[in-house]
Amino acid sequence: MKRLKRVAVIGVGLIGGSFALGARRAAVSAMIVGSDRDPQALERAVALGVIDEIADSPSEAARGADLVVCAVPVRAMGPVLRDVGLAMPDTAVVTDVGSTKTDVARIAREELRERAARFVPGHPIAGRETSGVDSAAADLFKGARVVLTPSTDTAPDAVDLVRTAWEAIGGRVTLLAPEAHDRIFAAVSHLPHVLAFALVSELAARDDAAELFGFAAGGFRDFTRIAASSPEMWRDISLQNREALLAEIDRYGERLAVFRELVAKGDGPGLQRLMEEARSARRAWGTRRAVSTE
Amino acid sequence: MKRLKRVAVIGVGLIGGSFALGARRAAVSAMIVGSDRDPQALERAVALGVIDEIADSPSEAARGADLVVCAVPVRAMGPVLRDVGLAMPDTAVVTDVGSTKTDVARIAREELRERAARFVPGHPIAGRETSGVDSAAADLFKGARVVLTPSTDTAPDAVDLVRTAWEAIGGRVTLLAPEAHDRIFAAVSHLPHVLAFALVSELAARDDAAELFGFAAGGFRDFTRIAASSPEMWRDISLQNREALLAEIDRYGERLAVFRELVAKGDGPGLQRLMEEARSARRAWGTRRAVSTE
Repeated sequence: MKRLKRVAVIGVGLIGGSFALGARRAAVSAMIVGSDRDPQALERAVALGVIDEIADSPSEAARGADLVVCAVPVRAMGPVLRDVGLAMPDTAVVTDVGSTKTDVARIAREELRERAARFVPGHPIAGRETSGVDSAAADLFKGARVVLTPSTDTAPDAVDLVRTAWEAIGGRVTLLAPEAHDRIFAAVSHLPHVLAFALVSELAARDDAAELFGFAAGGFRDFTRIAASSPEMWRDISLQNREALLAEIDRYGERLAVFRELVAKGDGPGLQRLMEEARSARRAWGTRRAVSTE
Repeated sequence: MKRLKRVAVIGVGLIGGSFALGARRAAVSAMIVGSDRDPQALERAVALGVIDEIADSPSEAARGADLVVCAVPVRAMGPVLRDVGLAMPDTAVVTDVGSTKTDVARIAREELRERAARFVPGHPIAGRETSGVDSAAADLFKGARVVLTPSTDTAPDAVDLVRTAWEAIGGRVTLLAPEAHDRIFAAVSHLPHVLAFALVSELAARDDAAELFGFAAGGFRDFTRIAASSPEMWRDISLQNREALLAEIDRYGERLAVFRELVAKGDGPGLQRLMEEARSARRAWGTRRAVSTE
């Protein structure tokens, strides 16, 4: 890609920091400026070579930038985009990294107004158990899927720039409508998180919780790993994607009721058939996935 | 432990084979004889040094044995125990490795009759994705929990022998009543398996399954890993532990309904509180577990 002059990263945590490191390694930009509400995170980011320069605010970071990456929680997107909009050049491109997209697209329309066509909603499918700039890594997005959800109003050159930047640091970019994105991730990500939180929450509330956890093993460990995720982030995602998530919870409840009924009736063949379908789908996915991330 | 003269392993798959290898390494017995309905598995077991000798039937294997380990699916336990009972010495001890215990204890009473006091139901909490004697490993049970569920009728010396044998190959033995075992594992193992099977089954049945799976990532991978488990085994476990599992599905459904209601009402603080409780319980468990398996 043509080297950019200035990239602004708003929020230098795990995702923003990793984007900056990847962009630096791929020589995406001559200079990377960072902004964060936590001054210590910014100092660490400079010390770790994640950013070149500290900006005191999103608008200061956005001044003169070719590309502004907002790597902040979705609940902070309103104020951040408003501030970015005060100073960004007309030709600048803005993107985000949030896990829900319909609401972000709406916030961008409200806050960026006539510049909303320069905003490309984005969602890199990568993460770690840990957070913060100290966990950032240049290769976090290597081979990771990145979903962009432009609308028909989004400027094509803005989409191209964001796509090219992600590809430069190793991402595999796919375009989806925001509603399709939110529906898909409600099913394959948001629902499993709620299901895992619900299981651990149920067990932890019992009088014999200590005994129960004492016998939990490897299957439980993997099934509930995502229940150790950030409650703030998953509270937000659950509410931001409420309608799609509720629909998924209801569909899931119906399927679980089918399993319950088969167990209650002692229907071995019926149970085995559903379990076999699940196993073969899960195995096929695991195999495809192993190939696709090679 | 005092070295045994003859240990019989009925079923030389992953679990039976690993027990045999571990017992051999710990010099638990002067000789290990194996029986299996699959002649090829027996040939492999001899070739791999897992067993010393092939027996043509469970009763032939049990003849003259000090300890008989039945490592067969619970559904095969009836015929196996009946056959073992035909030839086992009065002083021999019999145990199993099944995932449910109330039903196994009942089968043993029915099939072993006056020798039922020599039967010690057991459940080693270890496994692998793979199965078969080629996957067997002497250290599979190193540090693993092994639950024994003797009744008040079980001979104390039989419990001691089984405990000592498991400890010799690295197991950490705990005693539980069969009902307590089944209740606990319904919550921390059987329920999560059914929940994971239900999720994959639901998604796989949709018209857009391919697209959905295409966007599934690491959280989905871990949450659904157990949905790639053996349908036959989990069908059996679900039905063998039916009452306890149904109770767990219902409790879980109630807790999921609470989460659903909080999402539907947009109750951020309520959602965050439950998610925080879950995260802190999950993290505390992960930490304790890391320490306990060191």
